[in-house]
Amino acid sequence: MLQPAEMDSSRHTPTPSDPLKMDTNREIRCGFPEAVFAEGKTPAQVTEAMVRLSKAHDRILATRASQTHADAVAKALPDSQWNPTARCITWRKNPPTKTDHRACILSGGTSDLPVVEEAKVTLELFGIQVDSIPDVGVAGLHRLMDHLPDIRKASVVLVCAGMEGALPSVVGGLVSAPVIAIPTSVGYGANFEGLAALLAMLNSCSPGIGVVNIDNGFGAAVLASRILQS
Amino acid sequence: MLQPAEMDSSRHTPTPSDPLKMDTNREIRCGFPEAVFAEGKTPAQVTEAMVRLSKAHDRILATRASQTHADAVAKALPDSQWNPTARCITWRKNPPTKTDHRACILSGGTSDLPVVEEAKVTLELFGIQVDSIPDVGVAGLHRLMDHLPDIRKASVVLVCAGMEGALPSVVGGLVSAPVIAIPTSVGYGANFEGLAALLAMLNSCSPGIGVVNIDNGFGAAVLASRILQS
Amino acid sequence: MLQPAEMDSSRHTPTPSDPLKMDTNREIRCGFPEAVFAEGKTPAQVTEAMVRLSKAHDRILATRASQTHADAVAKALPDSQWNPTARCITWRKNPPTKTDHRACILSGGTSDLPVVEEAKVTLELFGIQVDSIPDVGVAGLHRLMDHLPDIRKASVVLVCAGMEGALPSVVGGLVSAPVIAIPTSVGYGANFEGLAALLAMLNSCSPGIGVVNIDNGFGAAVLASRILQS
Amino acid sequence: MLQPAEMDSSRHTPTPSDPLKMDTNREIRCGFPEAVFAEGKTPAQVTEAMVRLSKAHDRILATRASQTHADAVAKALPDSQWNPTARCITWRKNPPTKTDHRACILSGGTSDLPVVEEAKVTLELFGIQVDSIPDVGVAGLHRLMDHLPDIRKASVVLVCAGMEGALPSVVGGLVSAPVIAIPTSVGYGANFEGLAALLAMLNSCSPGIGVVNIDNGFGAAVLASRILQS
Amino acid sequence: MLQPAEMDSSRHTPTPSDPLKMDTNREIRCGFPEAVFAEGKTPAQVTEAMVRLSKAHDRILATRASQTHADAVAKALPDSQWNPTARCITWRKNPPTKTDHRACILSGGTSDLPVVEEAKVTLELFGIQVDSIPDVGVAGLHRLMDHLPDIRKASVVLVCAGMEGALPSVVGGLVSAPVIAIPTSVGYGANFEGLAALLAMLNSCSPGIGVVNIDNGFGAAVLASRILQS
Amino acid sequence: MLQPAEMDSSRHTPTPSDPLKMDTNREIRCGFPEAVFAEGKTPAQVTEAMVRLSKAHDRILATRASQTHADAVAKALPDSQWNPTARCITWRKNPPTKTDHRACILSGGTSDLPVVEEAKVTLELFGIQVDSIPDVGVAGLHRLMDHLPDIRKASVVLVCAGMEGALPSVVGGLVSAPVIAIPTSVGYGANFEGLAALLAMLNSCSPGIGVVNIDNGFGAAVLASRILQS
Amino acid sequence: MLQPAEMDSSRHTPTPSDPLKMDTNREIRCGFPEAVFAEGKTPAQVTEAMVRLSKAHDRILATRASQTHADAVAKALPDSQWNPTARCITWRKNPPTKTDHRACILSGGTSDLPVVEEAKVTLELFGIQVDSIPDVGVAGLHRLMDHLPDIRKASVVLVCAGMEGALPSVVGGLVSAPVIAIPTSVGYGANFEGLAALLAMLNSCSPGIGVVNIDNGFGAAVLASRILQS
Amino acid sequence: MLQPAEMDSSRHTPTPSDPLKMDTNREIRCGFPEAVFAEGKTPAQVTEAMVRLSKAHDRILATRASQTHADAVAKALPDSQWNPTARCITWRKNPPTKTDHRACILSGGTSDLPVVEEAKVTLELFGIQVDSIPDVGVAGLHRLMDHLPDIRKASVVLVCAGMEGALPSVVGGLVSAPVIAIPTSVGYGANFEGLAALLAMLNSCSPGIGVVNIDNGFGAAVLASRILQS
Repeated sequence: MLQPAEMDSSRHTPTPSDPLKMDTNREIRCGFPEAVFAEGKTPAQVTEAMVRLSKAHDRILATRASQTHADAVAKALPDSQWNPTARCITWRKNPPTKTDHRACILSGGTSDLPVVEEAKVTLELFGIQVDSIPDVGVAGLHRLMDHLPDIRKASVVLVCAGMEGALPSVVGGLVSAPVIAIPTSVGYGANFEGLAALLAMLNSCSPGIGVVNIDNGFGAAVLASRILQS
Repeated sequence: MLQPAEMDSSRHTPTPSDPLKMDTNREIRCGFPEAVFAEGKTPAQVTEAMVRLSKAHDRILATRASQTHADAVAKALPDSQWNPTARCITWRKNPPTKTDHRACILSGGTSDLPVVEEAKVTLELFGIQVDSIPDVGVAGLHRLMDHLPDIRKASVVLVCAGMEGALPSVVGGLVSAPVIAIPTSVGYGANFEGLAALLAMLNSCSPGIGVVNIDNGFGAAVLASRILQS
Repeated sequence: MLQPAEMDSSRHTPTPSDPLKMDTNREIRCGFPEAVFAEGKTPAQVTEAMVRLSKAHDRILATRASQTHADAVAKALPDSQWNPTARCITWRKNPPTKTDHRACILSGGTSDLPVVEEAKVTLELFGIQVDSIPDVGVAGLHRLMDHLPDIRKASVVLVCAGMEGALPSVVGGLVSAPVIAIPTSVGYGANFEGLAALLAMLNSCSPGIGVVNIDNGFGAAVLASRILQS
Repeated sequence: MLQPAEMDSSRHTPTPSDPLKMDTNREIRCGFPEAVFAEGKTPAQVTEAMVRLSKAHDRILATRASQTHADAVAKALPDSQWNPTARCITWRKNPPTKTDHRACILSGGTSDLPVVEEAKVTLELFGIQVDSIPDVGVAGLHRLMDHLPDIRKASVVLVCAGMEGALPSVVGGLVSAPVIAIPTSVGYGANFEGLAALLAMLNSCSPGIGVVNIDNGFGAAVLASRILQS
Repeated sequence: MLQPAEMDSSRHTPTPSDPLKMDTNREIRCGFPEAVFAEGKTPAQVTEAMVRLSKAHDRILATRASQTHADAVAKALPDSQWNPTARCITWRKNPPTKTDHRACILSGGTSDLPVVEEAKVTLELFGIQVDSIPDVGVAGLHRLMDHLPDIRKASVVLVCAGMEGALPSVVGGLVSAPVIAIPTSVGYGANFEGLAALLAMLNSCSPGIGVVNIDNGFGAAVLASRILQS
Repeated sequence: MLQPAEMDSSRHTPTPSDPLKMDTNREIRCGFPEAVFAEGKTPAQVTEAMVRLSKAHDRILATRASQTHADAVAKALPDSQWNPTARCITWRKNPPTKTDHRACILSGGTSDLPVVEEAKVTLELFGIQVDSIPDVGVAGLHRLMDHLPDIRKASVVLVCAGMEGALPSVVGGLVSAPVIAIPTSVGYGANFEGLAALLAMLNSCSPGIGVVNIDNGFGAAVLASRILQS
Repeated sequence: MLQPAEMDSSRHTPTPSDPLKMDTNREIRCGFPEAVFAEGKTPAQVTEAMVRLSKAHDRILATRASQTHADAVAKALPDSQWNPTARCITWRKNPPTKTDHRACILSGGTSDLPVVEEAKVTLELFGIQVDSIPDVGVAGLHRLMDHLPDIRKASVVLVCAGMEGALPSVVGGLVSAPVIAIPTSVGYGANFEGLAALLAMLNSCSPGIGVVNIDNGFGAAVLASRILQS
Repeated sequence: MLQPAEMDSSRHTPTPSDPLKMDTNREIRCGFPEAVFAEGKTPAQVTEAMVRLSKAHDRILATRASQTHADAVAKALPDSQWNPTARCITWRKNPPTKTDHRACILSGGTSDLPVVEEAKVTLELFGIQVDSIPDVGVAGLHRLMDHLPDIRKASVVLVCAGMEGALPSVVGGLVSAPVIAIPTSVGYGANFEGLAALLAMLNSCSPGIGVVNIDNGFGAAVLASRILQS
């Protein structure tokens, strides 16, 4: 069963109606703090959550955050930073530290950059070094092959692709590291907002690929972090 | 408007209730005779259709034919031949002739062979020379690259793939010939009987790929024939 | 394997983190230069890509481009042109040349015109002569039959249709040229943004039809170009 | 509100637990008696239902009936007849009478015949004269055009088609009678068991087409009967 | 084959590139003139089409028309009228005439009114008398039963319903007239923009119901007109 | 059959064309008055419906109401109240009464609050006491376990969850009360606007869970009310 | 948190690799014992599970059980009984007791009987009295209305329906008891194995209906039991 | 670019038409040898592939193999072994070695065992120690909690679940190791052959979960192996 240190309730009397029950012990159980998914929350809700988390953790993150969210958080946490491409707000108590862990993020095209950046910001918050190699879609294979030595240096490889989502299959046949596939909603028509890429990645003929939700750069980064810390 | 020679009705009085209205002038209009789709038809229906077509054409074809279909046809047309992998019955009035046209059929794995063979039988009936290069799936790219010079000799390239259907995207970035993509139902789970491969091919990041129905080797071959004869 | 001339890397040292890895040798491998898909890219990104491509090619194209994209590109490439119906930006180093190749674009209704125009602009950039015959949907068959002689002059026929997507099936039974079917998202309700037309075209009872993604006039034109140059 | 004669309950005390609550007054309300859908019912259940209906009606019908169903019914109702293609059991108290009503059933190919026959058997039970014109798919338009005068004699036109389901759109643009479209599950791959044809018919560019369920020849015939009797 | 009077081409030399090939003989073939689907067309395109149609017909219609469309048309055809709920523009050369035909339009709730009105405007343009009985959804059956005598006076019954789309099934069991079911996109969540109602109507346990596309009041009215004129 | 008191028609002569046929006897039949679904209705329509209902009932409700709706209703019913999170307008003739019934509403995250509030407002209108325990998603199980004693006090438990919709399965294994599962559209990508959560809840391995439509807090509350009053 | 009596682990040392971890305390937590879902399990697995459950409970149940399953269980538990229509095996330590609770099960047609029976067997095992009123589909409303007084006696109403799934909407507008809707896979074509009925029930215009999985008579009965015991 | 040792072609002259192009250097590139997917292949094809692989590798695997496949392979490779639950054939040149790597496989119910076993056989072939903890579905949470200490010993956790697929979300909130989620096709109705579980896992509110294809125990094991060897 859960040990007291793993539960917030060991520290305070929980209030049933509290609309924000921050899981401040998630880092103890899972190795990373709870993050705030800002989309669909008010700036006040995001700020309140970030402030509570900042009291329990050294580094915190909000994803899918707009500038309005960022401005509100910045008033309460002046050291917070907003990356507009990644749509992420980060805050650190201390200067960033770097571990020896190395991840590589590949992507098919420039339109995948917001997802790439979300993953990158998350990984760097965990102290992981990131090589981002964008625009290496399979229509011009040599672009990928040129960077194979760089890619093989990484302990985990994240691959973002929209449209037909073929890149993880090709990469999975070239490297021995775990491959995390991130389908993106880039494309139109019968891509059905990322469904085509998602199905392709789930059916990859290269085995050993773990797939996350469409456009879920954050989730891919957390999986990479779990892998690198295991 | 249609010229008399393009319509069967120029040759005989049409009967409304005739359950088989063979389109014996399709070859004049479209360049290839009507073929019989045997699945769901009785052996007697397939035989009747083949016999009628044999009176108007030099070479005829039935697809998706079982051995039972083939046996029934063979009684009426002793020179007919059945290819069990392709599930096709063919019959020729004269010995096959070969044109200079050259098509190449690539496929991802051995499970795609029935579709490959259906395309090959159809192409060869049209007198087209076929190079079949199976088992060159993207999980081992060098298998494809080894045969690039052979592939580039073809005036049209047919690419069969199941699972994630990535092969046409890779091929489309390597050759200048028209690429015809044939999704196959090979795979399981979230391949949804070929839907994953179909969507991938429709969303290919390599432009200039024409997609046919799932497992439709025949249709791909007819498109190749239209291209080579145009 | 790829020859050095087929790879950009033969010309320069590739930079992993460069967000635009223009595939400037695609024309050597595939017969046509890389195009820029503008949707979802910033005007600056589109401009940078077009400028780089203009240094390697005689004629370049950006699709799904808004006026904002076009204005930004025009500052860097004053000779570029924007076709608002096609939503395409084109730029040529030299005056257009015309080949003897002839393509025909049919469409079901006036609402299909943006897709028709995207295909037409692309084809004309390749020097292909285009006859566009719009508004010949199957509800009034004589409109199609009137123009059958014109249609049959083309070496390749592109057919755009939304709603039930029946036009390619009818055309496929009347001509011997290769037919490229382009489902459009025109319609409402159970057309599911072009899915109904897409499925209809994939299941055409007229064999030898290659289907591209919904609204993908560009891809259809590239396939036509591959066919005409093969 | 319902008049007593319109309700079975006016004739007998209803039993809640009776597993067969035959709606023997449907003919009074709707103009046609209840029919038995045999698929998934035991021969005993079908027989019991048919016997009860035979006591209240002059002519009755069971659809989707196997030979086993038919044999069981024949023991109880020796004059019943089974049409194996239509998979229908019919029984009449009196010899068939013919009304002046005339319906025409068109179909795309021979594989649609079971659906055509189900519609035909049902229509003829209602005394409606039926012209069946099979195998007039749109890949050979002249086959349809040859019979246009016959088709235009009908007061209602039923159109069966599988694959891309284009036939109703073409017919709808040629006749003024009401068109009832019946998608069939004929085809394979991306026809998704009749879904492609169903969507095509719902999105027809020819207005004034009523669509029934996939393979539902019976329902189409009842709609035709409603129309002819209105 | 088509008679000359049935084809526009009998009257003028057709121009391939004319983007509006008005099918001005449709009324001869089908009993009703071509209508203009305004959505996705420019005001100028709609106006041009209406003007051309007005020269060949006594009464014309544009559907899915915005006020902007209507204003543009009114400049060219001052007698045209716009019904904002129906989103329809109508124009008549002569005062409306009324036939003896009588149709009834039922609907589940007030949110279905735009679809009801589109059907009503279309029917009235054909001279058909319309009884509209809105807000009789099955959650309060007595509302429907109250009006059963009125409903039964109609020769054809149109039934609009969103959400679960149950109304046509109930009505189909109460009347002998043909029932035309119009699924609407009213609802939310798992109604999937009208798909739930569409599927329900296609699977109705009351036989003899013809279904049209989601929100397609126009198509339903044309089917009713075909029925009433047959 | 229905008793006169159960039908509005017992009280007044129904008008076929009345666009608002308020079912003012639903409370007699079903235990709760008809509610107004405001989305897609004009402020005038909502107001008219509320005014009519207020004459027949002590307490009335409009759901999915915007501030514009609320302002219009407030002019006619000055005592009406609008809850902006719940998007509900309520009006009571008399001060609220409280029954002994107790319901508990659990939710996975703060983004589910609009749905939670819609359920809560509805339940409180019925006089049911509500404990709302938000933000107890399964990623931090102890948050749920902390409140198990509170949850078990309720006679019925409503569980709102988006994303993977796992919360009802966990709760269903911990309590003996009936569980009503409300999938929310919270999430992105392959949640397909609540479909993922909906399917999860329908397939729960904990038996005895009733599922309502996506985001349907109102329907869940009415089901709870039916249960508590049964 | 869970009390010891609520967990099996309080009674024995749990073995990680034990493939059957019977949740013998579920009755304490949830009010009903764990049931065995036999489909896909071997007869030996089902027997082992039933034997273990029989040691902890007075009455046990296996659903989706074939005769082979039943025969194997009967060897170990001679008093077990198999209901072939319901496909359920039951076993009781003591003679059945009846509570005062009363449930009513309505169904649209005879093909729904297996689902009806699964629900009935489950309810009766819980001591609940069941009135089953089959074959009251909405195509003949009077069949339902005849039994309204019986239906209103029940404290909870279960409604099974396939095809368009309209019955729960109609029933929900006639009774005040909680309504549990069970979509069945009865039908064909566009019913998509019960999807049409499922969607209809989720979108019911009668509020307060809880939906369970397709064909899930067992789950509906457990929900009824939770309601009646709450 | 690929080094010669990474390509088979470095060892032999490749034959284009060879239907089995075993990728015998995959182990060098990816860390594990190619496996044979037996489903849809003939026993002769599987045997030929296994024999070729056995010449290049120390340990080989065929998945989805029937007894017929196994018998054929055993004739050629007498030391091969068949696990009927896992449907896997394995062959080793040398006795198995064990690494220190430790994986844990959790599963929701006994019906998931074939998928669990496929993963286990694969992992053990790689020398990884496996703890399998079946039947810990979320309906009885204590079953999972009992084994939390065991689960936390593993460096990677594989979680199999069908139905609603909630188990990975719960596990992901309790452990810090990477979680690999395997949706299974266990369930019925709206599980849509594993789609419900797949969507749930992709949308997990616990971040850092990698999802594989439905029933893909093999792919999950390869991903675990990549992780443990990285």
